[in-house]
Amino acid sequence: MKLLVLNCGSSSLKYQVFNMQDESVLASGRVERIGMEDAILTHEPAGKEKIKQVKQILEHKTAILEVLEVLRSKQAGVIQDFSEISAVGHRIVHGGEDFSASVLITPEVMNTITECIDLAPLHNPANILGIEAARESMPDTPQVAVFDTAFHQTMPKKAFLYPIPMQLYKKYKVRRYGFHGTSHKYVSEKALEILNIPLESSKIISCHIGNGGSVTAILDGKSLDTSMGMTPLEGLMMGTRSGDIDPAAVLYIMNKEEYTLQDINSMLNKHSGLIGISGISSDMREIEEGLLNGNENATLAFDMYEYRIRKYIGAYAAAMNGVDVLIFTAGVGENSPILRKKICENLTYLGVELDSQANEIFSKSARMVSTPNSKVKVLVIPTNEELVIARDTQRIVSS
Amino acid sequence: MKLLVLNCGSSSLKYQVFNMQDESVLASGRVERIGMEDAILTHEPAGKEKIKQVKQILEHKTAILEVLEVLRSKQAGVIQDFSEISAVGHRIVHGGEDFSASVLITPEVMNTITECIDLAPLHNPANILGIEAARESMPDTPQVAVFDTAFHQTMPKKAFLYPIPMQLYKKYKVRRYGFHGTSHKYVSEKALEILNIPLESSKIISCHIGNGGSVTAILDGKSLDTSMGMTPLEGLMMGTRSGDIDPAAVLYIMNKEEYTLQDINSMLNKHSGLIGISGISSDMREIEEGLLNGNENATLAFDMYEYRIRKYIGAYAAAMNGVDVLIFTAGVGENSPILRKKICENLTYLGVELDSQANEIFSKSARMVSTPNSKVKVLVIPTNEELVIARDTQRIVSS
Repeated sequence: MKLLVLNCGSSSLKYQVFNMQDESVLASGRVERIGMEDAILTHEPAGKEKIKQVKQILEHKTAILEVLEVLRSKQAGVIQDFSEISAVGHRIVHGGEDFSASVLITPEVMNTITECIDLAPLHNPANILGIEAARESMPDTPQVAVFDTAFHQTMPKKAFLYPIPMQLYKKYKVRRYGFHGTSHKYVSEKALEILNIPLESSKIISCHIGNGGSVTAILDGKSLDTSMGMTPLEGLMMGTRSGDIDPAAVLYIMNKEEYTLQDINSMLNKHSGLIGISGISSDMREIEEGLLNGNENATLAFDMYEYRIRKYIGAYAAAMNGVDVLIFTAGVGENSPILRKKICENLTYLGVELDSQANEIFSKSARMVSTPNSKVKVLVIPTNEELVIARDTQRIVSS
Repeated sequence: MKLLVLNCGSSSLKYQVFNMQDESVLASGRVERIGMEDAILTHEPAGKEKIKQVKQILEHKTAILEVLEVLRSKQAGVIQDFSEISAVGHRIVHGGEDFSASVLITPEVMNTITECIDLAPLHNPANILGIEAARESMPDTPQVAVFDTAFHQTMPKKAFLYPIPMQLYKKYKVRRYGFHGTSHKYVSEKALEILNIPLESSKIISCHIGNGGSVTAILDGKSLDTSMGMTPLEGLMMGTRSGDIDPAAVLYIMNKEEYTLQDINSMLNKHSGLIGISGISSDMREIEEGLLNGNENATLAFDMYEYRIRKYIGAYAAAMNGVDVLIFTAGVGENSPILRKKICENLTYLGVELDSQANEIFSKSARMVSTPNSKVKVLVIPTNEELVIARDTQRIVSS
């Protein structure tokens, strides 16, 4: 079975084609600058040469047609005909409270995803465009929705409710949803597999640290709590996002700067975090460079970033009354030994003992970076959200 | 030396007169409903009968004159003449970044407290009224300011800065200040005294849980981090305050409900927390009653309240790489065995072992409530902010 996995953003689209016989990736690629005359299609077929095309791509439908075109092209193709694609799996950011697992996309499902636009105004509309475009191009191919929020639907009320008037939850569904669910699920299952620990009695904290970042407490295989909230703004300090801040400080700034809701949202989401503090970059690689060169602002940004991750790890250890497994994943989590080192060297009270040599090794494989004696097992596990989407899609269309 | 300690709110005033020879309280009392025709003065002289007067008290100056009057009255007085009061100590809520300790009030100090009005618009103006009224009534008596924020001025940048554009800190001093500093300082020093642990190598977490609440990480005697932020809104779920919430959820609610800044501030500060979730009360005693009677909303409110305190304890254990001493203080912290029990029974991973019998005893004395074997010592210490203010005042006027 060959599957197409689509991840549609507002002006970009990422894709992978899987051969589910061996879960191999036949091709991957992306379309950027959708809506422009000089959109860019980058296509990487396994074992063949990478292709880059610059052309006018004004809408998502055209983008998907272009992808399907290149997928069956002579030069760089990996299929002969559309009909070889058995199903399309879509990454959907916000499923609200209605989806606790992946589902086959039906008209009802489309309605619900549309209703969730209000909760994710930047993401769900693009996801919907992707589904519609795929349906127009491949009307007979089943499509599956895989939600970023679904894994976290196991959170208990005490973790997902905010201490605000209850009618705001009832009226507008204001609550914690959490994101990166596909990633937290994947790496936690992978960790249990590697460690050979039964799901039912495990206390895992997974740190998905990329440009966005979230920490999740996973008790007995289920998400118990997570740092992102109703939106992906809450929680950790991120590349450009503030994460947690005194809500009254936000209102104070709005008042002082005479900001509109859009202004303040933009400040908190796009101009805060690493870039806000360092003034240098939102990219941890550049922050680390600054740190190594003794740049004061970069050092401060790094310290705050590390400190805030560590505090969440501590909070979730308290939420579960302990922790057995600590996982680092995503761009920064997988590729920053110094961040992992700084976090772990202040978690010895939990029984974390980092293997400093293993921690320094760069690898694309899942690996243990704690010593054999470490009470808490520390793992670096490359995340693979596309593979989870493909697996869920296969399972759903096969059943 | 006899000292008067004043704590002025916008429409109320609390006072205590200390005899510093033995730190005994000669009298305590309060004036409520200042500004009304039926203001209430309650006066409790040590060893004499309590007095309650209802009369017109239109301003703070009159209130202080009334207090001074009753203090030297025949029936309920504790002094013969004003001149016996050697100094007045004032509780001041916000000292900004300028005060890291208590100070003698000079015109310059008054200017700085006035500049901080912007950071504490509800509190500092009342504090200033109190200073001015006391000065008018007792022009020759030295006055001392004791700040709620001072103890937390030792926080490092990584703890007190928010991950927002740095110019907002430079321009408006938007940062974490923390509050309840006098209380956190008092109970942490008391704990070290009881346990006979040297200040220099101690990891303390103190939980001041009253109608407002904050948790502080105290490393080697210094505040390292605290849950309240730029304002007393951030951090724990409180009686009527939300504490932490996704800042984007706040903006979402403002948009949906068409709230002004004042509306949303009022919702988060006055209609959230225990009252927002339970719909019953902002008072933990009534929430506990609901919990015992199986009321669902009260149970949820209690669970959220407990869970959020516990997560902060966990976070601060991670901030200090461990914890030796856990302190509960203030109204709820001192008087809710069930809250302490629920928190501690999920902190066994830290080495917390609660002595369930000791925990159930109600007492007005500082006491240990952990077992002798408990790795983390758990104490209940009645806070005494007035005594700290009196001690600081004595020290400053004597030097």
